Amino acid sequence: MQSASKFKVGLVQMAASPDAEDNLARAVSFIEQAARLGAKVICLPELFRSQYFCQREDAALFDLAEPLPGPSTETIGRVAREKNVTVIAPIFERRAAGLYHNSAAIIDTEGNVSGIYRKMHIPDDPSYYEKFYFTPGDLGFRAFDTSVGKIGTLICWDQWYPEGARLTALRGANVIFYPTAIGWHPREKEIHGAEQHEAWRTIQRSHSIANGVYVAAVNRVGHEKPADGAAGIEFWGSSFLSDPFGVVIAEASTNREEVLIGEVDPARIEEVRRNWPFLRDRRIDAYNGIDQRFLDVIEEHE
Amino acid sequence: MQSASKFKVGLVQMAASPDAEDNLARAVSFIEQAARLGAKVICLPELFRSQYFCQREDAALFDLAEPLPGPSTETIGRVAREKNVTVIAPIFERRAAGLYHNSAAIIDTEGNVSGIYRKMHIPDDPSYYEKFYFTPGDLGFRAFDTSVGKIGTLICWDQWYPEGARLTALRGANVIFYPTAIGWHPREKEIHGAEQHEAWRTIQRSHSIANGVYVAAVNRVGHEKPADGAAGIEFWGSSFLSDPFGVVIAEASTNREEVLIGEVDPARIEEVRRNWPFLRDRRIDAYNGIDQRFLDVIEEHE
Repeated sequence: MQSASKFKVGLVQMAASPDAEDNLARAVSFIEQAARLGAKVICLPELFRSQYFCQREDAALFDLAEPLPGPSTETIGRVAREKNVTVIAPIFERRAAGLYHNSAAIIDTEGNVSGIYRKMHIPDDPSYYEKFYFTPGDLGFRAFDTSVGKIGTLICWDQWYPEGARLTALRGANVIFYPTAIGWHPREKEIHGAEQHEAWRTIQRSHSIANGVYVAAVNRVGHEKPADGAAGIEFWGSSFLSDPFGVVIAEASTNREEVLIGEVDPARIEEVRRNWPFLRDRRIDAYNGIDQRFLDVIEEHE
Repeated sequence: MQSASKFKVGLVQMAASPDAEDNLARAVSFIEQAARLGAKVICLPELFRSQYFCQREDAALFDLAEPLPGPSTETIGRVAREKNVTVIAPIFERRAAGLYHNSAAIIDTEGNVSGIYRKMHIPDDPSYYEKFYFTPGDLGFRAFDTSVGKIGTLICWDQWYPEGARLTALRGANVIFYPTAIGWHPREKEIHGAEQHEAWRTIQRSHSIANGVYVAAVNRVGHEKPADGAAGIEFWGSSFLSDPFGVVIAEASTNREEVLIGEVDPARIEEVRRNWPFLRDRRIDAYNGIDQRFLDVIEEHE
């Protein structure tokens, strides 16, 4: 069997300004740049159209949401069609009054929204008050057909869950994208910063290894300080592409906007999965219980 | 709530000689050494009583198997009782004629076999012909009560499967041990050795991160060459203990026998899980399909 052709992916590591139109215009410009560099699939960071508004809970901020398809996907659809690229565009989705999602639109080479992923795992931690804004996704874990084969996308907090990566890979994705908005609390950075960044990098590389897929983590950069004088979040960039054995083959800086280009080689997936045939030996007869919160109660009744 | 007390674990990184009695005697000596150094739970490498016989398929080698409980657990039980320690003793288990398992006995501080784990994921690759020898385990993924709280054990190839670690953690294990026999093919070492070792380390550290547990990988050392003149396997040692955020807090050499001591701090588990509450946000309503081999067929019928 001949493997499919190699192709390039573009990871847009960008900062967000307070101006949504400016963010969209710059995203378009980065997509054009990635396309010039040969990328066929281009991914923007989570919620790229705005600063990371979840640092506080404010119902007025639902004004930032938009329908899907909507203005952002329309603008990005034009550049996708013009450049003949697939774009993963993370959108704050307004589905109905009082019903909002942290979503990603798959925009195909015709410029249409050909798929939607809605963030399944929603965090809620100091300065990341996402449970206030985002209804948990109801579309499950998916893979999407593109001109270069199947890809999947998950979003940020999903990256800590092996189940999400596994299900996306079982759907046939060869690359899993993780548009992200993660950073350091300035007061924690010196003591915990290095280990937080390393844990984030490690868990995503592990999804490459467990599933024999490429993983593309696409983070924002910039220190975003809320108006209330709080210390804010220093987004750590460090976008990277890991190969199907977890080797990081492209990696961006911690603090600069950049378009990171990496190559996906289906023959490498074939090679790794032949030599490390983890999918062959899964004990699918014995994973019951994984859909339980904790297995303490079952123990007690045994 | 006050967390439980800290305790030490002992990871016995040893080589195997062709003499099963010698291996057992040295294992006892290493257990005594680990106990002197303060370890309360001590883990031996996979199949520690023999050289790694799975490098070839030979029905005569089933003679190496023994019942469980049996001679090895009896000898180890004596030292466990004497030193007041829990021991994880990997045993080539003869369950019935024609029915053998790659198992681990949990030997309690009274010297009794208080639990058995049977390797669930069985590899089969050149020089690792395990599917010939070992019937896949039928006891599932477990946690065992000990004098220092719940621990789990999985074995070697299991380490590549996030599902096994997850289920063991959901059963309440605070530490997951991975007795192991993994090494380099000498002909591959120069080109692929570093990335193989790094993938092995990464996937196990990721189980710490995803589940907020300590992970103890316990590997053998030594270059074992079969009599047929084959190149054999150079077992890479590198036993390590990672904390609940994936930080490696103790690590052994690649080529020397040693008893590695590391500290488990339940308060660290509490701290990491409070600040990175992954268990809180699992989408247990949406993991259906994870018990399927691949999700291609379902796609086609949608």
